[in-house]
Amino acid sequence: MKIINKKIYISKIPIEKLTKKYGTPIFVYDEKKVRDNFRRVAKAFQKYYPKFKLYYAIKVNSNPAIAKILINEGAGVDAASINEILLAQKLGLKKEKIIFSGNYLSDDDLKAAIKSQAIINLDDISLFSKLLKFGQPELISFRINPGIGKSNVGEGATTAGPKAKFGIPHEKALNAYKEAKNAGIKNFGAHMMTGSCVLEPKYFQKITAKLMDIIGEISQKLKIDFQFIDLGGSLGIPYKEDEKELNIDKTIKLISKTIKEKAKYYKISEPLVCMEPGRYFVGNSGYLIGKVHAIKHSYNTFYGTDINMNIVPRQILYKAFHKIYVDNKINQKKFDTLLTGQICEQTDVWSKDQKLPKLDLNDLILIENCGAYCFGMSYKYNGRLLPAEILVNKEKSYIIREAEKFEDMIKNTKIPQHLTSLK
Amino acid sequence: MKIINKKIYISKIPIEKLTKKYGTPIFVYDEKKVRDNFRRVAKAFQKYYPKFKLYYAIKVNSNPAIAKILINEGAGVDAASINEILLAQKLGLKKEKIIFSGNYLSDDDLKAAIKSQAIINLDDISLFSKLLKFGQPELISFRINPGIGKSNVGEGATTAGPKAKFGIPHEKALNAYKEAKNAGIKNFGAHMMTGSCVLEPKYFQKITAKLMDIIGEISQKLKIDFQFIDLGGSLGIPYKEDEKELNIDKTIKLISKTIKEKAKYYKISEPLVCMEPGRYFVGNSGYLIGKVHAIKHSYNTFYGTDINMNIVPRQILYKAFHKIYVDNKINQKKFDTLLTGQICEQTDVWSKDQKLPKLDLNDLILIENCGAYCFGMSYKYNGRLLPAEILVNKEKSYIIREAEKFEDMIKNTKIPQHLTSLK
Repeated sequence: MKIINKKIYISKIPIEKLTKKYGTPIFVYDEKKVRDNFRRVAKAFQKYYPKFKLYYAIKVNSNPAIAKILINEGAGVDAASINEILLAQKLGLKKEKIIFSGNYLSDDDLKAAIKSQAIINLDDISLFSKLLKFGQPELISFRINPGIGKSNVGEGATTAGPKAKFGIPHEKALNAYKEAKNAGIKNFGAHMMTGSCVLEPKYFQKITAKLMDIIGEISQKLKIDFQFIDLGGSLGIPYKEDEKELNIDKTIKLISKTIKEKAKYYKISEPLVCMEPGRYFVGNSGYLIGKVHAIKHSYNTFYGTDINMNIVPRQILYKAFHKIYVDNKINQKKFDTLLTGQICEQTDVWSKDQKLPKLDLNDLILIENCGAYCFGMSYKYNGRLLPAEILVNKEKSYIIREAEKFEDMIKNTKIPQHLTSLK
Repeated sequence: MKIINKKIYISKIPIEKLTKKYGTPIFVYDEKKVRDNFRRVAKAFQKYYPKFKLYYAIKVNSNPAIAKILINEGAGVDAASINEILLAQKLGLKKEKIIFSGNYLSDDDLKAAIKSQAIINLDDISLFSKLLKFGQPELISFRINPGIGKSNVGEGATTAGPKAKFGIPHEKALNAYKEAKNAGIKNFGAHMMTGSCVLEPKYFQKITAKLMDIIGEISQKLKIDFQFIDLGGSLGIPYKEDEKELNIDKTIKLISKTIKEKAKYYKISEPLVCMEPGRYFVGNSGYLIGKVHAIKHSYNTFYGTDINMNIVPRQILYKAFHKIYVDNKINQKKFDTLLTGQICEQTDVWSKDQKLPKLDLNDLILIENCGAYCFGMSYKYNGRLLPAEILVNKEKSYIIREAEKFEDMIKNTKIPQHLTSLK
C-alpha cells in the first residue's frame, strides 16, 4: 500500500479504481508483498542455515491463489485438517511438501492422514497407536509442548506452556519416541508451535534452544537421529502503531547459531529446520476496503459502512487493532469516530481504538493487515454474505474468489416434504 | 430433549441413533419445540390482544426448513438484509408478511427494499430521503431508540439506549414523521428493538409504555395515526441453570394492558402490535452433538471432541454458557473437565464453566440451546467445514442442510493464469 497525492494505492492501482470495478466490501491482496515476505525469510535461512524448508500454514488464508503464490516461491503447506491436505494436493504439492499438524484427531482424520502420506506432526502419544491401525508411516514427528509459550495477539494464541491444549509435555516426549521406535519407526522429526505473532528475535532463540535440548537428550537416550525439527510459525507482524517489525535476519541468525551449538554439544547431526509461518507471509499483504453508506446523528454520530463484523472477525474475537485509512483524507486532522457495520449487533462498532478524519458519504475506508485470520474466519450472518477476494499484481487485478450470492446462502439446504405440503 | 434410562432423546429418537445415521458433529432441531414456542406466544396474544402479528427474525437461524415451520404456523419474516428478504420471498411469503429492519443501508439495499414492497423499519431519518429516490412506499415505519435498552446476553446485544448504533433518538422521532408526512406518506408504523434475551415481564411493559408515549405525542402533534407498533424481539430464553423461563402469558398480558391504557390516554386507536422474536422461537429447539475423539494427559487432561469453536461461535464471541450433557452418563458424579475442539487455537476450549462426568473415548456430547445464533454465525476455519443440520419430528429425521464438503471450501475461487503457468 502506498499513498500518492492523498490517494491510496495497492501496488500500482488506486483503491478507487478497484472499488469501481469490484464494488465494496472487498478483500485485496498484494502479490508482491506475499513474495517479498516469503523471500525475506528464505534469504535469511540461505544465509545462515541452508538446510531448511518453509511451509505455509494455510489455515490463516486458504484462498488457493494466495497459497499458489507461496507454492510457486517454494513453500510447502502446513495443514490443520484433512480438507487442508486435500487443498494442498489439489494445488499440486507432493507428499513431502505437505505437513499435517492437527490436534485431537478422529479415526477418520488419522486414516486419511496415513493415506495422504503427508508428514505427520502427531499432537499426542495417544494418537500413535490409533494411527498404526491404519498403516505404518515412514516417519513420525511428535508435537512437543516445551513448557513455554508466548503470543503477541492474546492468550488464545499462546499454544504451548502449562495451560495449552497442544502437544506432548516435554517431560513425556521421551516415552513417545520410545513407543514409536519400539513399533519399528525408523525416521523421526520433532515439532513445536508455541504461540502466534511474536516480535522478539531472542524468543525464537530461546525456544529453539529448548527444543534442541529435548531432542538432544532423546537422541542420546534412544540412539535415534532426528531428520528435522519444525519450529512452528510464530513470526509476528506489527498491528499496533508502536510495534516494531520483527527482525527476520537477526531471528534466523540466532536460531541457526543455537541449532549448531546444541547439535555440537549433544553430538547429533544438524537437523533439517522447518518453519510454518502463515501470518508472516500473508498478514500484511491483505486489505479490506469498504464504503461509508450512512451517517446518523443519534446520541452519538455513527458512520455506517459495509465493513460488517462478520467479515472482520479479529476485531470482535480478539479485540484486535487494525489501522484504518480513509482514501483522499490522509493526514487530515483526526477525531474520535464511531464507525459501524450493518449487522444487528451493538458489537458491530469499529474504530473506538483510533481517531479518524471527518467522514463523508461514499468515503472509501481501508483496513490494513487483513491478509491473515480475516477472510479465513469470516461468516455469513444477517444475510450479509462473504465478500470477493481480489489479487493485485502491479497494474493488474484478478478476482480470486467471487462474492457470495443468495444461492450460497441456501446451498446444501432441503425442506422436508411434510413442511412444503402443508399450507 | 428428554432422558430415558440415561440415554438422551430428541423428540422420540435417541441421539445415538442420530449420530449413527448422520455422524458428528451435527445440529439437531426439534420441530415440535419450534411450534410450541410459537404457539405459546400466539396464544397469549389471542387471549389478551388479538390484533397482533408475529414475525420470525430469520437472522438467528436462516435454515429454510426452520423458517418454513414458523411460516406454516402463521409467522411472517423479519429480515435484516436484502438476502433475508429474498429468502422470505422464496419461502412463499407475501409482501405484507415481510418486514425489513436493516441498518446503515446502502443505496443498493434501499433500492431493493422498495422493489420488494416489504414493510420497512427505517433505522434513521437520513435514509428516508435516500429511499424516496427509488420510489414512494405506501407506509413508513421508523425504528425508534426509546433511550433505554437491556440484554441478558451481554452489552453487544443491548440495542437501544445512549450507546446504541440503532434507531432514531426518541427526541428526534417527531421530526422524522413530520418529514415523512410532508413527503406525502399516509400510513405509519413505529418500531423499536431494545435488546436481546430479556427474561423479566415488567421490562416489556416498561418499553411498551415508553413507545406508546412516543407515538401518542407524535399522533397528537402531527395528527397522524399509527397502524402498528413493532415491539421488536427480546423475548428471552434461559441459558444458565439459575435462570428462570420468561413468563410469556404475564408478559403479553402486561404489554396488552399498557397499550390499551396508553391508547385511551392519548385518544388514539389501538394499534396492530407486531413482535419479531427469533431466539425465543428456535433457541431451545436446537442441539449440537459431537463425540469425544481423543483424551490427552498433558499438564492437564484434555478431552478432544469435534465440537470445534468455529461451529459454536456464541461460546467464544460472548463467553456464553451452554449446558453440556453426556449420553449414558446423566447424573454421574461430575468433575472439572477441559473439553476441547480440533482448532489450532487455545480459545477452542469448552466447559471451563461447568463440571462434567468422567469421559471416555466415543462418548456423545450434547450442547443445548443451539437453535439460535449458532449455525447462523458459524464459520469455516482450519478446513473444518460447517456441519449438517437435522430436523427431528417425532420418530422421523430429515437432513435440512448437508454437511459441507471439500468442494464448498474452494467454491467461487479462481487461480489467475499467471500463477498456474509458472512452475
